[in-house]
Amino acid sequence: MVDSINKPGRLRPAPENFLSEEQIKAVGAGRRDFLRKSFLAAGAALAAPVVARASEGDSAILNLPEWTTTLGQAVAVRPYGVPSKYEANVIRRESPGLTRVGAASVSFCPLQSLFGIITPSGLHFERHHQGWHDIDPARHRLMINGSDPEFLKKPKVYTMDDLMRLPSVSRIHFIECGANTGLEWGNVAVPTVQYTHGMLSCSEFTGVPLKLLLEDCGVDYKKARFVLAEGADGSSMTRTIPMEMVENGEVIVAWGQNGEMLRPENGYPLRLVVPGVQGVSWVKWLRRIEVGDKPYATKDEAVHYIDLMPDGLHRQYTSIQECKSVITTPSGGQQLLDKGFYNVSGVAWSGRGKIKQVDVSFDGGLNWQTARIEGPVQNKALTRFNINWVWDGKPAILQSRAIDETGYVQPTYGQLRKVRGTKSIYHNNAIQSWKVLESGEVSNVQVL
Amino acid sequence: MVDSINKPGRLRPAPENFLSEEQIKAVGAGRRDFLRKSFLAAGAALAAPVVARASEGDSAILNLPEWTTTLGQAVAVRPYGVPSKYEANVIRRESPGLTRVGAASVSFCPLQSLFGIITPSGLHFERHHQGWHDIDPARHRLMINGSDPEFLKKPKVYTMDDLMRLPSVSRIHFIECGANTGLEWGNVAVPTVQYTHGMLSCSEFTGVPLKLLLEDCGVDYKKARFVLAEGADGSSMTRTIPMEMVENGEVIVAWGQNGEMLRPENGYPLRLVVPGVQGVSWVKWLRRIEVGDKPYATKDEAVHYIDLMPDGLHRQYTSIQECKSVITTPSGGQQLLDKGFYNVSGVAWSGRGKIKQVDVSFDGGLNWQTARIEGPVQNKALTRFNINWVWDGKPAILQSRAIDETGYVQPTYGQLRKVRGTKSIYHNNAIQSWKVLESGEVSNVQVL
Repeated sequence: MVDSINKPGRLRPAPENFLSEEQIKAVGAGRRDFLRKSFLAAGAALAAPVVARASEGDSAILNLPEWTTTLGQAVAVRPYGVPSKYEANVIRRESPGLTRVGAASVSFCPLQSLFGIITPSGLHFERHHQGWHDIDPARHRLMINGSDPEFLKKPKVYTMDDLMRLPSVSRIHFIECGANTGLEWGNVAVPTVQYTHGMLSCSEFTGVPLKLLLEDCGVDYKKARFVLAEGADGSSMTRTIPMEMVENGEVIVAWGQNGEMLRPENGYPLRLVVPGVQGVSWVKWLRRIEVGDKPYATKDEAVHYIDLMPDGLHRQYTSIQECKSVITTPSGGQQLLDKGFYNVSGVAWSGRGKIKQVDVSFDGGLNWQTARIEGPVQNKALTRFNINWVWDGKPAILQSRAIDETGYVQPTYGQLRKVRGTKSIYHNNAIQSWKVLESGEVSNVQVL
Repeated sequence: MVDSINKPGRLRPAPENFLSEEQIKAVGAGRRDFLRKSFLAAGAALAAPVVARASEGDSAILNLPEWTTTLGQAVAVRPYGVPSKYEANVIRRESPGLTRVGAASVSFCPLQSLFGIITPSGLHFERHHQGWHDIDPARHRLMINGSDPEFLKKPKVYTMDDLMRLPSVSRIHFIECGANTGLEWGNVAVPTVQYTHGMLSCSEFTGVPLKLLLEDCGVDYKKARFVLAEGADGSSMTRTIPMEMVENGEVIVAWGQNGEMLRPENGYPLRLVVPGVQGVSWVKWLRRIEVGDKPYATKDEAVHYIDLMPDGLHRQYTSIQECKSVITTPSGGQQLLDKGFYNVSGVAWSGRGKIKQVDVSFDGGLNWQTARIEGPVQNKALTRFNINWVWDGKPAILQSRAIDETGYVQPTYGQLRKVRGTKSIYHNNAIQSWKVLESGEVSNVQVL
């Protein structure tokens, strides 16, 4: 039937009952008032049931909402659109007191209000070390050099125009700060998923593979086994990346995010995209790449972004974000208004590849059911899961447990602490628990 | 090596050369000035080559850009972010004079400035019939009824809360106005890809399959073979959709777009998503669904959105957007600044399914090369293609030709006009040509 209606070239005359002969004559004679009244009557008949229900029995025709009875706003009133005024609470939020100054702080993404896998760029989490700038792309440069001339034969300086002429790729990837869920290592620290897991976002990034740039500069892969990435802000943000990650083509020097240029607070005009790796390595405002033969031991890998282990030593050079998931609806701070059916929804991700399966428990981990994974499943990207739940009004503990394509299973807090203790800041990928009370209130709890 | 660095639990002491003994003592003694000077010197050495190039030989240390030497802005200064001030020209644009009033007009998406497949929601094209409203979701309702009680046993009215509790799906789909490229049927009408192809966008949509709602209302598929969708604005926007499209689960009653709630100008809080079908059927501000046993012959399918064929009859009830593509970079109005390498990039899409292949010609269709398809390839979604081109400085005509998974090949203007003539407004999916002059100027031309 679809085909018969849409078959190219098939012709169908207008149904005879579309306009009566009288109506057609009315138009011809300019008797618009007749048509107007006919249409108003028809409109009222169509709209009545909806409005009657909405307004609890008031006269339907008198209660048509203003958006049905008035002319709306013109196109391009907003040449660049913004959300509805009714969504004013869906914003990034800073955690007061987390850091001393806002220029070296975090704003968290409102995961509890989001759908699907793409994070709107306006809500992408922020983590700066010395604040963000709106850099002039005409003045920005990317230099590529070697710590020894042997490692890279033709050091170059690229303008943005130079870079944007090169072969580009577009890929959807998550980015997660290594410190995401960091406040939860030892105890329940914050009430909502925005603060427990909100240093997490997912975008479609566009840029040139770093591999291509290094080869353009005559890299010697046998000698140059590490890459140093350096940002243009004042924080001296530098990180070492092993060359294996570059050689497989996954690391991108990106200018595009969700279809447009990067936002200033996400590194405009250039940032490094290191899929699967913690956010600190995705150097923003990227101005320099150096290749060398050993890790660079920069401050943000040697003395920061390290994990204090139970034996008192620090775990360094951690980078890949292991498989993790979280239920975003319902989540801490939300309220179930009544018993009955709910679509329980969340996101899963892994720095090792694609998500294979997500299980959900409604009883704190005693029983598990496999969730539906619907929508795009991409390499090292957020993956949306959904599962049906009929809430009987009794207390419940909701958990999700992700499994990636390597077979790695997201650990419980008990399993993770057995190896890592409770003193770390980074790389907490334990199963999150949300407790539902009889009142419908949802809160953050830890289950070992 | 990646594994060895990231192996859980592997410990590595800080390299000995990170801080010298003297530096460590300096910190201990509070001699910060020493450290500060050391770091400044190191910073200057690192930054010098970049800045030297940028400033044409001026003293490097004096010309560090302000974003390197000043504290940046705090996180959450913008709780909802916006693009860089340098991107102020990347906006939706109205075509002056296209319609009499802006409330019944079009704003076009700036395809020439976009990357990948996701359209930023702020740049999504607009086509309204009586302007847009910012509807209060607490007052909005969706009614589902049958034109005969036999067709649907339990008519219902849903609140937004009712709908958002139901099982949802998230899928990436393109939406294209049936009139996209409509000005080009008979001649070259407009200079840029924003105006030739800019009634086109692609988003991740989240919502409940309409199939599920109809079944919740007790639909009888044997009797109810058509769906009428009705919007809440004043334009009486109503369209018939064949039930086959609903039964396969693809039609969604959507509230989410690119991770957040729909934007007001795209139907907030509810719109119909009809993948593969022209935009007019994606009814915005959706307030009612009726099921019936025949097409409804509404004004926007019986007398508008019809194609005048060469024999004087009108082609009605067209809906599926056939396979199409366009090169967005370089495109009309742009200027190649010099000879050499370019990444030629564009998008392809098909209302019949996935894109299988895109070919590109640089000589007006005499010779074709297969482009790279990189990034996500989704059902009925924009698909980004790229191809390498070394411009020798001579005149060239750039074309792209898409092929979808059904084997359908995008037609030339000659092929399309042979069947449809030149008087249509809708469903122009012909191959687009961009002419490059020796001056580097790129312009819109038609090749039959």
